[in-house]
Formats: sequence, structure tokens, C-alpha cells
Amino acid sequence: MREMLADWRPAIDEAIADLVPREIDADYLETFFGPPTYEYDATGIECALATPLWDLLDRGGKRWRAILFLVFIEGFGEDPAEYLPYACIPELLHNGTIIVDDVEDEATMRRGDPALHHVYGHDIALNVGNAMYFLPLKVITQNPADLPADRQLAAYEMLMDELNRTHLGQGMDICWHNEREVRVSTDEYLEMCACKTGCLGRIVARLAAIITDQPDAVEEAVATYAELTAVTFQIGDDILDVEHSLGRAGEFGKEFGNDIREGKKTLLVIHAMAESDPERARRLQAILEADENTDDEIHEALEILAETGSIESARECALELAAQARAVLEEVDFDTETTRKLEEFTEFVIERDV
Amino acid sequence: MREMLADWRPAIDEAIADLVPREIDADYLETFFGPPTYEYDATGIECALATPLWDLLDRGGKRWRAILFLVFIEGFGEDPAEYLPYACIPELLHNGTIIVDDVEDEATMRRGDPALHHVYGHDIALNVGNAMYFLPLKVITQNPADLPADRQLAAYEMLMDELNRTHLGQGMDICWHNEREVRVSTDEYLEMCACKTGCLGRIVARLAAIITDQPDAVEEAVATYAELTAVTFQIGDDILDVEHSLGRAGEFGKEFGNDIREGKKTLLVIHAMAESDPERARRLQAILEADENTDDEIHEALEILAETGSIESARECALELAAQARAVLEEVDFDTETTRKLEEFTEFVIERDV
Repeated sequence: MREMLADWRPAIDEAIADLVPREIDADYLETFFGPPTYEYDATGIECALATPLWDLLDRGGKRWRAILFLVFIEGFGEDPAEYLPYACIPELLHNGTIIVDDVEDEATMRRGDPALHHVYGHDIALNVGNAMYFLPLKVITQNPADLPADRQLAAYEMLMDELNRTHLGQGMDICWHNEREVRVSTDEYLEMCACKTGCLGRIVARLAAIITDQPDAVEEAVATYAELTAVTFQIGDDILDVEHSLGRAGEFGKEFGNDIREGKKTLLVIHAMAESDPERARRLQAILEADENTDDEIHEALEILAETGSIESARECALELAAQARAVLEEVDFDTETTRKLEEFTEFVIERDV
Repeated sequence: MREMLADWRPAIDEAIADLVPREIDADYLETFFGPPTYEYDATGIECALATPLWDLLDRGGKRWRAILFLVFIEGFGEDPAEYLPYACIPELLHNGTIIVDDVEDEATMRRGDPALHHVYGHDIALNVGNAMYFLPLKVITQNPADLPADRQLAAYEMLMDELNRTHLGQGMDICWHNEREVRVSTDEYLEMCACKTGCLGRIVARLAAIITDQPDAVEEAVATYAELTAVTFQIGDDILDVEHSLGRAGEFGKEFGNDIREGKKTLLVIHAMAESDPERARRLQAILEADENTDDEIHEALEILAETGSIESARECALELAAQARAVLEEVDFDTETTRKLEEFTEFVIERDV
């Protein structure tokens, strides 16, 4: 993992800076967006777009989506360096969704600093987040690897498919969050993850397959691998939140039980609601519904999750999905090195403890 | 104007309902978005997407962008009925930007009712607004008029161009709004309008030209016509705000001077800052900068705009742009009826008094 990170990260950030430089001038604007009808205000565009975008990127983030894309490109027998600009597409899309999600979720912090809307205001944050949905897609028009038109069209169609389903996933998640009752099935929860988190993974994999002209079966296999790995990652997140909370619940002054406080309908909650006796289930639902909870109540909810075996059940589900992800890789004729990297990546999302 | 409205509006709303039905079921989701990996929650998606989308559309709106698109299609000698699904693209994009802009501007009302984020929350409003940036683009993939691949690709590339510039325009506008000083030039202001409002007009015109396979020169001419008309419309808005305010400033309890209260750097403000003596200019800037203003202060700012001839200057500019819009139409070989409709449309945006 570490070797992949160290190798590519500077080159990825350079490729992003080619798309959106830190300092904006009239030449860049004219080249990238076309000549103005009247006159661009480079200062205004720098302050509205480049500055907040680089503020977020410079805070960190592992550029996983860009790196995974380059692993696929290499696995398909092509030179990653030649396709670097395309690696910016999933990376900027991902960071754009982070900015918008933080507004939607009323998040206060992001990567150790105040969320972008707290630094620049809702207006700037939303506009740059949304701009990041379209800025990277210009790469396909610029056509750095000189793709034939049918591949460019296939890339646009794929992006429209996946970006539409991303908003379905986010829509389901928000809707459940706003509902009091826990009415979601396991399959609906997995679909929400597949749409919300999985589609960005699918973009990574399908983009690599489309621009290197892989057969449909290969594109579908890597898309399924990426989707399964993304869903595994999401469930891993849900488990970590509860495990850390159980560990920390006794420590004075530490935040814990964030998902419970937010009333999130995670896989663990869905399992506990189904498995606990009616009285305990009602109690869990009441704690999730409440606008405010005491630490004791959070502790009680965590206990209900623990006693019904929800953590084990969710981990079993995640392990099963990870196994499916590895199995689907066998359908693709990757070299041993690529398969190892991809398996390691899936391993990482389930084994990580941060 | 009225005849165009009456004729097409029901058919446009039906075409939108074909894309996003008011009631969402599993069949629609599977057909439109593809089969789920697990299981869609149709109820959640209806509440997160269809309900707020139709709430906004059912409040009114003239569907101008869709109608203008159909006028172009007819003018290019094609049957508008055959291209109806494409008319939904600019219409849904426009309504999506309205939802997002209302969050960015912290608007309270929209079309006579509370803005969507006040009805459904920021999360639902932003997600549906953003979804409307991608939902209509699926029309190009569905390819209702059976376009050749190069036309589909040209449509996607055009949309990415224009949607990128839309965010530049919005970025400049927000940035100036957040700045205290009025430092914007007339050309920068016009560029902001050309990007923010004009690009959606350009999408209307270019989409009609691309999908009916017009020569590049025709596509560029209609795009310029639409951009000029949109900028004229924007300046018309700025003038109306001041004119209504001067008319109403004496009436007790009526809202007036909204643009001044918001500190907007309109063409009128830019003109007044340049034309008034330094002391009056400083006074205007101070009123624009202030977080709160008394009615007397608003009245004073309006007086500075009036005494420097800013209204006349802005109207002259709008008339000049409208004349350019009509002139550019002469480059295209439209029938008399289409030319009449397009001239009438430009006339309308400058002559309207509401």
C-alpha cells in the first residue's frame, strides 16, 4: 500500500494542478474554459474556485481513487503516466462530493480543520463542490491519450450513469436519516452503500477499462470489484464507529457513539432491531430518534448492538463482500502483481483500525 | 409569446414526468438507472428526489428554456415533438441551479412559497438540486431521436463546456458579493452574466443546433443570440429592482432596494461608482458594505444611482445587447415566423415590467 502511495501522489497532485492551478490567470482561463465574451475576473475565480479546492486537497486525503485507477491502468498493460489526467476525474469528483456532503450533513470538521463551508461560507463551498463535478470531466474533451470518439462517448455515458446513481444513494441515506422509524432492509442498506460510495469506485474501475478499450466483461468485473470493496469500506466504517465507542465509552471527555447520536441507520442498527426482543428494540429506536442523548443512553444503545451480535454480523457481511471482491478479480486476466495490489487494497479496507 | 406558452407547456411537463415520474416505483428505477445490485428503496427515492422536484415545478415557472429550445428545433426545420425529451435538459438544469442558488443565497422564498431548503431541509434540497444536473443528461444516452454517436459526443462536450462556465460565473458573483469594495469593471460584470445566466441560454441554443446537425457557424450564431438575450435579461432584472424601488420607496411597509440591501455589484452600481463624485461614491460604497441599512439609507443609495444616470446607462447597455442579439439572428437562415418569435423573445426580456 505504502509504496503505491509514495510513488504516485506527487504526480497526481501535479496533474490536478494542470487542471486547476493554485494561481489563476487570464491565460489559463482562456485555454481551459475558452475565450471570454467580455473579460474574466481571474482574481475572483481564484478566490471562488482554486483557493478552496486546494485548501481541501492540501489538508491530506490519500488520493486512493486516483491511485486505484493507475493500478488498473497498469494492470491493463498500459503506461499509467500517459493516463494521469484521467486519474484526476474520480479524485476531484470524490473531493467535490465531500464538500457538498459536509454542507448537507452540517459537518463541522474535515481532515482536522473546519469544514470548507465554515471557512469560506456556504455559497463558496457549494459552488466549488459543484464545480468539481464538472471541471474534471473536461479531461475527456481534452482527450490527453488521443482516444477514439466511441471511447470518449462511452466515458461520458458511464459517468452520467454512475453520477446519477450516486445521487440516488445519497437521497436514500438522507431520507432514512430524516425518518424516525428504522424501516430499512439489509438489501436496501447495501444498495444505498453501492450507490453512494460504490458508484465512485465503479467510476475508477470503469474509466480505466473504457479508456484502455477492455471488453465489456472485464469492465463489469472490475466495476463489481470496486463496488464490493467500496461497500466493504462503508460497513467497516460503521463497525469502527461502534467498536471505538465501546472502547472509549468509559473514558472521560472523549466523543463516542457518533453514528448513534446522528441516528444513522447502519447495518448494525438494522441487525439489532431485527434480533433484539421487542422492548430492547423499542429502546434502541427511541435513543436513535431522540435529538439529544446522554452518554448513558448512548452506552445503552451500544450495549444493545453488542448483545445482539451486530458487530459480528456486520463483520461477517463485510468479510463475505471482500471475498466476493477477490473472487471477481479471478475473472480478469491480471498479472500477479496487479492482483496482489488489488487484493491488498480490499484487505486494507476491512483490516484497518482507523 | 402567450401562444408559445399555451401550446407546449403540458407536453413539456409530460416529457419531464417521463424522465422523473411523480411517483417512483421499482420498475422505473430499474429502467432509468439500471438494475440494482441489491434493492432500491423506491419510497426513499420518491421522497428525496421526485417530491421536491415536482414541488418546485408545480409552483410555476414558464418553461422558457424548453420552449425556446423547441422554437429553435422548429426553425431548423425539424418536428419539435420528436425532440421533446431534449427540451427537458435545459429546463431541469435551470431548476436545479435555482434550488442550489437559493441555498447559496440563503433565499427564503421561491415562486411564492418557502424555498425548497426551508421545506425539505438543506440536505434534501441540495441533493435534488445536484441530481437535476445529471438526471436530464441521461436523455443523451437514451438517444430518443436516434442521433449518430458524433452528435451525442458533441452534445456531452458542449454541456461540460457550458456547465463549467456556469460555475465560473456563479463563483465571480459570490466572490464580489463577499468583497466590500466595488472593484468590478463593466466587462467583468457582463462576463459574469454571460457565464452565470448566458451559459444556460447557450445550452438551449447549442443543444438544438447540435442534435439537428447544424453547421458550426449556425451553432455559434444561435449561441451568441441566446447569450446576449440572457445577459439582457439579467441587466433588465437589475434595472427593475431599482425602478420598482424608486417607485415604492415612499410606500409604507413595502420591501424595496433588495439589490442594495444585499450589496450586489450590479451594472448600475458599477456605473454610479465611476460617475459620481468621490464623496457620493464613498457613501454608496458604505451603504452597500453595511450589514444592515435603514430605509433612508437605501433611499439615499437609490438616489445616487438615479442622479448619475445609472438607470439610463444600464438600459442603453441592455438595448445595445438586444440589438446585437437581433443582428446575429440575421446570420441564420430562419423562416420569418421563427425570426419573429426569437425577436419577440428578446423584446420581451427588455420590455417586461415584472
